Amino acid sequence: MGRRIGLQTVEIESKPRIIGTYNIVGPKEGQGPLKAYFDRIIEDDLNGADSFEKAESSLLYTAISESIKKSKLKEVDINYLLAGDLLNQLSSSCFAARDLNIPFIGLYGACSTMAESLSVGAMIMEGGFASYVVAATSSHFSSAERQFRLPLEMGSQRAPTAQWTVTGAGAMVLGKNGNFPYVTHVTTGKVKDYGITDVNNMGVAMAPAAVDTIKQHFMDTGRRPSDYDIIATGDLGVIGREFTEKLLLEYKYDMKGHYIDCGEEIFDAKLQPGTNSGGSGCGCSAVVATGYLLKNMLKGKFKRILLVSTGALLSSTSPLQGETIPGIAHAVAIEFGVSK
Amino acid sequence: MGRRIGLQTVEIESKPRIIGTYNIVGPKEGQGPLKAYFDRIIEDDLNGADSFEKAESSLLYTAISESIKKSKLKEVDINYLLAGDLLNQLSSSCFAARDLNIPFIGLYGACSTMAESLSVGAMIMEGGFASYVVAATSSHFSSAERQFRLPLEMGSQRAPTAQWTVTGAGAMVLGKNGNFPYVTHVTTGKVKDYGITDVNNMGVAMAPAAVDTIKQHFMDTGRRPSDYDIIATGDLGVIGREFTEKLLLEYKYDMKGHYIDCGEEIFDAKLQPGTNSGGSGCGCSAVVATGYLLKNMLKGKFKRILLVSTGALLSSTSPLQGETIPGIAHAVAIEFGVSK
Repeated sequence: MGRRIGLQTVEIESKPRIIGTYNIVGPKEGQGPLKAYFDRIIEDDLNGADSFEKAESSLLYTAISESIKKSKLKEVDINYLLAGDLLNQLSSSCFAARDLNIPFIGLYGACSTMAESLSVGAMIMEGGFASYVVAATSSHFSSAERQFRLPLEMGSQRAPTAQWTVTGAGAMVLGKNGNFPYVTHVTTGKVKDYGITDVNNMGVAMAPAAVDTIKQHFMDTGRRPSDYDIIATGDLGVIGREFTEKLLLEYKYDMKGHYIDCGEEIFDAKLQPGTNSGGSGCGCSAVVATGYLLKNMLKGKFKRILLVSTGALLSSTSPLQGETIPGIAHAVAIEFGVSK
Repeated sequence: MGRRIGLQTVEIESKPRIIGTYNIVGPKEGQGPLKAYFDRIIEDDLNGADSFEKAESSLLYTAISESIKKSKLKEVDINYLLAGDLLNQLSSSCFAARDLNIPFIGLYGACSTMAESLSVGAMIMEGGFASYVVAATSSHFSSAERQFRLPLEMGSQRAPTAQWTVTGAGAMVLGKNGNFPYVTHVTTGKVKDYGITDVNNMGVAMAPAAVDTIKQHFMDTGRRPSDYDIIATGDLGVIGREFTEKLLLEYKYDMKGHYIDCGEEIFDAKLQPGTNSGGSGCGCSAVVATGYLLKNMLKGKFKRILLVSTGALLSSTSPLQGETIPGIAHAVAIEFGVSK
């Protein structure tokens, strides 16, 4: 049985294992600093599809189906697929789920969806409802640009604070047994809005939510930043990461040496012009978590990590109606090889 | 602990109680056959807001906050808010959640969201993660029309198969104790696509998913239609309901006398021109479930019901890219006063 500790955190007693993962990324991500951690790098960002939306969905389908194969399982073994994405009406996930014969729970937390799906997946496992679940998400630079910003054909200039939506998908299979990294805690975030209106500065819009969830996680668990080898926010970028670090220091949590942002890590802004403040999108924390974070856990480099995927909960309509940008962040603590 | 029975169904041993509900609807719904079952009927479908999207969000906020009050609880008592809606990027739910100090799990299952949020909420309760959760959803005729179809100002003619998106929101508070209707089983649906392309005939597009989930629920539980006082699909409308009934009869499940569709019940097509095949939208099964179904359970009229909310998983883009319309249906069995 799960156990509530503090206001927003639960302990997952049965420690669901992440028994298999798969990620697939676009060409730009495949040229970035984390290229060695991706399972597949596609050459054409349309991935053979005739639209960017269908391409994104095909990436998600691949990540899910390959993660199941890597776990030596079949679709029929999976009790629940938990997935979401940024596209209107969760298009990428719904069409990927159509081609998979698995009961489907669609989730939306904007770019927080990797931690959200992993959280709910771990809770469902703990409740005794499943032997295996898959948690997954995706994003695509070109489908996001045209939905949220401007048609690519306009060639508009990017703000220095702008982030580059990651083209990629990541999936994790949760199971009950085996010597794999396992989920120990889930901290579910609240929606936070500090009145940011600049849609080209999402990192700063999401930072208060990241700060709130990380701070609450520490308060609930009694842990400190140094209890984690790595605390990884989802996609705040350089600017949002610096902002988060400063705000947490005001609460006396010194993150130095224990904190990275997936969006900052995935691109090299100097060698990859246009990526500016860093990567973003649901796929960002999904491919960095299933790549750099979990692969290094398996190698013994990290023993305890906190994945804090972060989402900006604006819609394609809300800024036009004068709304500010709310954010949310969900945290999942994962361990491997920690001696008690 | 939850228990898997059959391929897609789980038994919820702890029987989470639906301890409080609230619904709020628009003027048209308030003139329909179920008007006596609504907690609040608004006179102006903008509800004092300056856009239909904000109006929808205000309805959802009201349903959630009033359901908490009716349960004699405060926001701080609620461990999780599970909500979703039809708007791009779950706008109605995200902005309602911003004004509520509750950890938020966003869900998307199109119009299946009431059963989806109730399902996940019941599983989280069973897992020992929460004392109280709220499951909620909303829709709004005018925000849906302009997002999915045509600007209202065009005054376009409605197809005979068309459905009228319900303006309304419903919320349910789940708790552990008390003499209230309780959740016994959850059957999570798969995405089904039978190649329907007519966006004005959603009922028929969703019917195969409804049939699949209902049939699977019967197979998993060993129950028959006659074991339920009412089986209520979400928003198939008259045409989709007839189609579902026929298809289930082919599988030897005779639904006659035990089956209604929330979309068919909420409007009177003769007295309310334009509603055609019936109501639709996430709000449809939410307000009928929190109204007609649960209020009649409390009165002792229904002892066992199966809520089967149904969603059409198209996006505002997918039909333009030549895609067919996938559907999904989730089923939740609810009991009250059944003698063992």
